[in-house]
Amino acid sequence: MRSTGGAGEVFLPCETLWWERALARSLTVDKKVRRALEKIVGRPNVLTEPADLLLYGYDSSTIIGNPDVVVLPGSTEEVARVVEVCSERNLPFVPRGAGTNLSGGSAPTEGGVVIGLSRLTRILEIDAENLRAVVEAGVVNLDLQVLLAPHGLQFCPDPASQKVSTIGGNVAENAGGPHCLKYGVTLNHVLGLTVVLPSGEVRRFGGKAVDYPGFDLVGVMVGSEGTLGLVTEMVLRLRPLAEEVQTILALFDRLENAGEVVSRIIAEGMLPAALEIMDRQTIAAVEASFPSGLPLDVEAVLLIELDGIRESLESQAKRCVAICRELDARRVEVGQTPEEREQLWSARRSAYGATARLSAAILVNDATVPRTQIASVLRQMQEIEKRHGVRIGKLFHAGDGNLHCNILYDPDDPDDFARAEAASEEIFRVCAEAGGTITGEHGVGAEKVQFMRLLYSAGDLEAQRKLKSVFDPKGLANPGKVLPPPVAAGEQVDEHPRRQA
Amino acid sequence: MRSTGGAGEVFLPCETLWWERALARSLTVDKKVRRALEKIVGRPNVLTEPADLLLYGYDSSTIIGNPDVVVLPGSTEEVARVVEVCSERNLPFVPRGAGTNLSGGSAPTEGGVVIGLSRLTRILEIDAENLRAVVEAGVVNLDLQVLLAPHGLQFCPDPASQKVSTIGGNVAENAGGPHCLKYGVTLNHVLGLTVVLPSGEVRRFGGKAVDYPGFDLVGVMVGSEGTLGLVTEMVLRLRPLAEEVQTILALFDRLENAGEVVSRIIAEGMLPAALEIMDRQTIAAVEASFPSGLPLDVEAVLLIELDGIRESLESQAKRCVAICRELDARRVEVGQTPEEREQLWSARRSAYGATARLSAAILVNDATVPRTQIASVLRQMQEIEKRHGVRIGKLFHAGDGNLHCNILYDPDDPDDFARAEAASEEIFRVCAEAGGTITGEHGVGAEKVQFMRLLYSAGDLEAQRKLKSVFDPKGLANPGKVLPPPVAAGEQVDEHPRRQA
Repeated sequence: MRSTGGAGEVFLPCETLWWERALARSLTVDKKVRRALEKIVGRPNVLTEPADLLLYGYDSSTIIGNPDVVVLPGSTEEVARVVEVCSERNLPFVPRGAGTNLSGGSAPTEGGVVIGLSRLTRILEIDAENLRAVVEAGVVNLDLQVLLAPHGLQFCPDPASQKVSTIGGNVAENAGGPHCLKYGVTLNHVLGLTVVLPSGEVRRFGGKAVDYPGFDLVGVMVGSEGTLGLVTEMVLRLRPLAEEVQTILALFDRLENAGEVVSRIIAEGMLPAALEIMDRQTIAAVEASFPSGLPLDVEAVLLIELDGIRESLESQAKRCVAICRELDARRVEVGQTPEEREQLWSARRSAYGATARLSAAILVNDATVPRTQIASVLRQMQEIEKRHGVRIGKLFHAGDGNLHCNILYDPDDPDDFARAEAASEEIFRVCAEAGGTITGEHGVGAEKVQFMRLLYSAGDLEAQRKLKSVFDPKGLANPGKVLPPPVAAGEQVDEHPRRQA
Repeated sequence: MRSTGGAGEVFLPCETLWWERALARSLTVDKKVRRALEKIVGRPNVLTEPADLLLYGYDSSTIIGNPDVVVLPGSTEEVARVVEVCSERNLPFVPRGAGTNLSGGSAPTEGGVVIGLSRLTRILEIDAENLRAVVEAGVVNLDLQVLLAPHGLQFCPDPASQKVSTIGGNVAENAGGPHCLKYGVTLNHVLGLTVVLPSGEVRRFGGKAVDYPGFDLVGVMVGSEGTLGLVTEMVLRLRPLAEEVQTILALFDRLENAGEVVSRIIAEGMLPAALEIMDRQTIAAVEASFPSGLPLDVEAVLLIELDGIRESLESQAKRCVAICRELDARRVEVGQTPEEREQLWSARRSAYGATARLSAAILVNDATVPRTQIASVLRQMQEIEKRHGVRIGKLFHAGDGNLHCNILYDPDDPDDFARAEAASEEIFRVCAEAGGTITGEHGVGAEKVQFMRLLYSAGDLEAQRKLKSVFDPKGLANPGKVLPPPVAAGEQVDEHPRRQA
């Protein structure tokens, strides 16, 4: 991905003055195309200035692409007409929400047209009684939550980026969040979609009811990262806000014990809303930047969040505290009021930012493993850290086995970036071998395309490519993402450890 | 479907002596094919006797087909080789579990090869700690539950047919059950699949982890009723058994009040495991056959089942009882012990059988509506009953708006069957217009194919057909099911009310 040249030239973040090169690039979308697009969305909504193109060239990953033009349509109809223009002229197109993507899904790695959906911000319906909402793709996650709260309702997916990220982006990436242990990822909360197919046709899949008959094209679209079409409107399943929430913070001298608490809680039949672990590296980062009084000599901080009806929480919290004590927690605190809870979460919430302060750049590795494999994978990760000389901050969504490692690197040092990449690749390999996956919630994007071969055989990937070819025969929809290219004759590729298991 | 002639001749259940005609049919699978199949699965596992063909010609719906041969493979490998033979010789094939299907999905309406999966009964893995099980398609749902119980675990989908129906069938139909209000349909509990594609290739989609990257082909396969391939093995998500369960039974003089209780319970943020309503017709049927002491002059029996941890149930049950009383319940009983609960469920459990005793045959209509539309749709249904002169027993899965009407008819009277079909069609139309669907949990099969046009535009259906053509270019996998044929030029078809909404 990173070496593509030509119209879709990709710049490495660690190349010196890559942005100067980007700014110097000549426009490859001709005037005719620009006029056609301006006619659809209005002149101010077609961006071709080098500074704008630069801005829309990257997301929050290490991948940076270079669009030929950025279009900001204002309706499903306009999106469909823009895509028609792309289809007629064989221009690749890349949908974009807020650009918080952590795997390069919204970076235009092969150039073409970035279709920004940030103007599609209408809330079309809140049907509180049937627990449904219909919204456009550009609605910001937290804006929706704020509107739902007076109805006593929520949209469960709450990615850490929710202040900024859009529902359309959440759907494209099948986003998770700290509470997806209990409530599931985005897919579990989407009932229907309006999709602009790569042909420009507008289709509806699913609807307001549960379990629409026929093939589940909603499931196919959710998490497909814009490679099968653009989702412009969605019917969301809502859920009542929990009546009460309690948060428990426990400190452990040994990381294994924190992991054991997680297993025990699940084994006892409790299903907390969140189970999060921070390791020593992350605690140190937090205390260095946003001190919250955590001791630096513990190996793990475990956060347990319980929600539900009032009477049940009291007893569940007691059980969780008892399990923590049995496993030698050094300190256990229970937060009941919103203020107390916020205090317990503050370290966790600032962890990503604090880790980012330790280094100018972070390579986010988002691999998962079965819960029972966490301890053994952790030992292997310590070896990987040593062998490659990298620093890795670990911020587990422990309940669902999401390791979520943040690998620090210096973007001005190509060698350091190479080391981070090598370590990341080894982590993916270890996790795939342990029966896990290469992404817990951030998608495959452009960053992890090559690692799909760790999970799927050539034939399994071919079945997915066939599916793509049905919807996108010209291969214009977010090209280069999600699926690796077919293996060329004679090419050596990784075996897929899962297949041998 | 019902008028197809030739190899796949279909007999109406109300045709006199249809079985004599079936027995007299000549075998259309030649000796070469039979020998090829015998070579794969062994002679005793290839059935060609007229009596066997008759047996495998129908499921639990009104649809009856006529297979050319029945094959009972013993492994994924054997299934793959059988499908290869079908593909080479262009023979349609129809997968079959236990045949409890209520919409004709397992009836071989175009003849060909019935592939019975009942010999695939291995439980390959129970990983209690990671809450996963790997099983073959022919494992009976209840057999699995019995094996899981000592681990304190369950597989949530619990269709009413669970004593007989197979997990493979549950997956093919995306089965529901009384507890899918809280826990979701089968799709929510399947993580990975081994699939024999119509080419005979074996593919794996998903796996043991949550949220596999790439296109969600697990979602596409679940509920596709064997039209995209045969699922032979599945990775299931398990869940701890609820620590405690309480059941509430409430009697209402007015059906609307029972509906209002359902809305209020959901509105207060409680999510019972089950919310079931029986109407007066169904109560009368139960008391006539399996008396359980229900008064005949009430309009509705509401069953509320709560599960969870001990302390929370007490208070939730109190709230539910209070809501029932506020809405003038004539009687409210709470069952806490397994025996008390069983007593309260007994009428509901015998309802289908009791309804069946009222009439020699039942046309099961499985339409759903948004919860808020239940009252208005019920009024329209009363008119439909009157207008067509049919009797309809209602057994709502009220929590998820599944109306689940049982339309009684006399299989020896073609006119009566026609009236039942006309009433069923009108119910589908009314439900589609109210924003619901034509199936809650029993699939589309052969019975409801034509009603798919009530839900999807021609273009939406075309997108689904394209998907099918990728996996099944020859159209051999369970032909005639799920998708209606494309509209011929000049043909008049129903408008799709959902599209106008």
